Amino acid sequence: MTEETGTNNAKKQLMAAIGPEVEKIEGAMRQDLQLAADQADPLLVEILDYGIFNGGKRLRPLLVILAARLCGLQGDKIYDLAIAFEYLHAATLFHDDVIDRADTRRGKPSVNKAFGEIAAILGGDFLHSRSMFLIGSHGGSAALEIFCHATNAMVDGEFLQLRNARNYNLSEEDYFSVIRGKTALLLAATCEVGALAAGATPEQQQALSRYGLNLGTAFQIVDDLLDYQGDAKQTGKAVGNDFQEEKMTLPLITAMTAANAGDKKRLLFLLADDEARQTGFSEAFALIEKYNGFGLSRSRAEILVADAVAGLDIFSDESVVHPVRILRGLAEYVLTREK
Amino acid sequence: MTEETGTNNAKKQLMAAIGPEVEKIEGAMRQDLQLAADQADPLLVEILDYGIFNGGKRLRPLLVILAARLCGLQGDKIYDLAIAFEYLHAATLFHDDVIDRADTRRGKPSVNKAFGEIAAILGGDFLHSRSMFLIGSHGGSAALEIFCHATNAMVDGEFLQLRNARNYNLSEEDYFSVIRGKTALLLAATCEVGALAAGATPEQQQALSRYGLNLGTAFQIVDDLLDYQGDAKQTGKAVGNDFQEEKMTLPLITAMTAANAGDKKRLLFLLADDEARQTGFSEAFALIEKYNGFGLSRSRAEILVADAVAGLDIFSDESVVHPVRILRGLAEYVLTREK
Repeated sequence: MTEETGTNNAKKQLMAAIGPEVEKIEGAMRQDLQLAADQADPLLVEILDYGIFNGGKRLRPLLVILAARLCGLQGDKIYDLAIAFEYLHAATLFHDDVIDRADTRRGKPSVNKAFGEIAAILGGDFLHSRSMFLIGSHGGSAALEIFCHATNAMVDGEFLQLRNARNYNLSEEDYFSVIRGKTALLLAATCEVGALAAGATPEQQQALSRYGLNLGTAFQIVDDLLDYQGDAKQTGKAVGNDFQEEKMTLPLITAMTAANAGDKKRLLFLLADDEARQTGFSEAFALIEKYNGFGLSRSRAEILVADAVAGLDIFSDESVVHPVRILRGLAEYVLTREK
Repeated sequence: MTEETGTNNAKKQLMAAIGPEVEKIEGAMRQDLQLAADQADPLLVEILDYGIFNGGKRLRPLLVILAARLCGLQGDKIYDLAIAFEYLHAATLFHDDVIDRADTRRGKPSVNKAFGEIAAILGGDFLHSRSMFLIGSHGGSAALEIFCHATNAMVDGEFLQLRNARNYNLSEEDYFSVIRGKTALLLAATCEVGALAAGATPEQQQALSRYGLNLGTAFQIVDDLLDYQGDAKQTGKAVGNDFQEEKMTLPLITAMTAANAGDKKRLLFLLADDEARQTGFSEAFALIEKYNGFGLSRSRAEILVADAVAGLDIFSDESVVHPVRILRGLAEYVLTREK
């Protein structure tokens, strides 16, 4: 069996294991939105339907459920907490697309493009509010605290990024602060809230939080790698987008740090000069390659994934073999995903 | 004593009674934001400081506190719940100013103007999140439910307004639905949450909710009257703004309903024609006056205020004379305010 076939098989198995769960998550969201939107404006209902049911991976609710199962929780009450994280995620995407003036999302017009900016801002506010309501009423104040810590960190991460726009000397540390806030802490929170709902021990809760943090960080590094190395047909995003936006991500930061004075100067010119940036992507790509910026970034992601998986070792009970296997599979999928 | 001096005296007394409370509210917000923003991005801290401490009336937290006092609550724990409503209000203003592309707010540059749209959207999200955290952790799930019901109604009200933009046949019913969602339900929620925190009886809670709903509705009617009849120097807003935006508010709706065919046709023309709208404000004003649109709108507000005040009669205990007097004063102030 070739490595590629192995990867494909692993992916198939993972998807088969996840599929029914994703369907249940979407069912829970439809049911809840029907309840929440019972007396809501029909335009709002249409926007929510359009913006939420768009083929998303449902990673966040999945993590809540798996973490809860790992800590022994049975039954379906956990879905109320799980979907709150998908709502929050959707709310963030609604607002992000307004902020970035993005026209498309997952290959179709973004909410702001399809319904206008106002609708996207307000729809996001509605989902934000609903998500906190679900967390507060089904998870109590401990869950709400974890949740709000993560949402505040997201806003913080955005502000850090905003302050550092076009800062070509962005440090690795700042890069990791941003992705920790923007992505990783929320994944840690999903796992923690799931564990909490199951009445987990502090040790279990910590292991799952560490899993989420590592997974989220690795996920974002791979995202940033795909921006350079991905296949636009697969990712649905133009290759080199971050570079065109002068966004400093790990491959570029790593190369910049390692480069000799001449190469660093050249990279800076390619980034900062409006004309050079348009035409010089392949030259910049080659310079990053020269200093192994891609390879070193991928190694970082691999180490994080290995650490995420290792943390799951404490869940050795026979009864949780299935959710442990899925969490391992998800972590490995992060490294092999192509979109 | 002339009527005007009487009004001025009443206003002076009200402000003297409220002043120390407003200071305590602002102190509580400063303390909480210091806590919340302890590890937050410095840019975020600056934006919050700029956007929140701008001379606001603090009506919402005031209502929470007064409602709680009316139901017998002592001590300062209520401030944590009270300030949540001011955060939510501020978050709404941040987002509203983005939506309306407003350049000023209370006579200085709006947050979006001073710090950019992204900062205004994210700053609003942060405050929204913080407000729900405070409600959930200090008020429990009952308070969170009331709060979320009100925030969802706000979004709903915005959507209803959005769908009805340039609908010159807007009914009174739709007008009241919009202002109920956008303003009144939140004021009802402030009173309810305050009552709830004090362990009020259902009767007390209902009376206070009714007070808030009536007050909020009257407040918005007067706001819409001031848009026609106010003094721009006092209100800080251009007179006739709603008319220029083709926004159907109560004076215009009332006149339109009562007008004969010829006058109605003329009003519609003045509204719909881009040139006529620019030059025809005083003619439209006169037509509204002809059908007593202003007088009838004011009567509606007066009836609502009277009903709000009457509902307070059940709070007849000697120990709550002071907060009852302030709530009465606030209701009457709504009718006499000039800005």
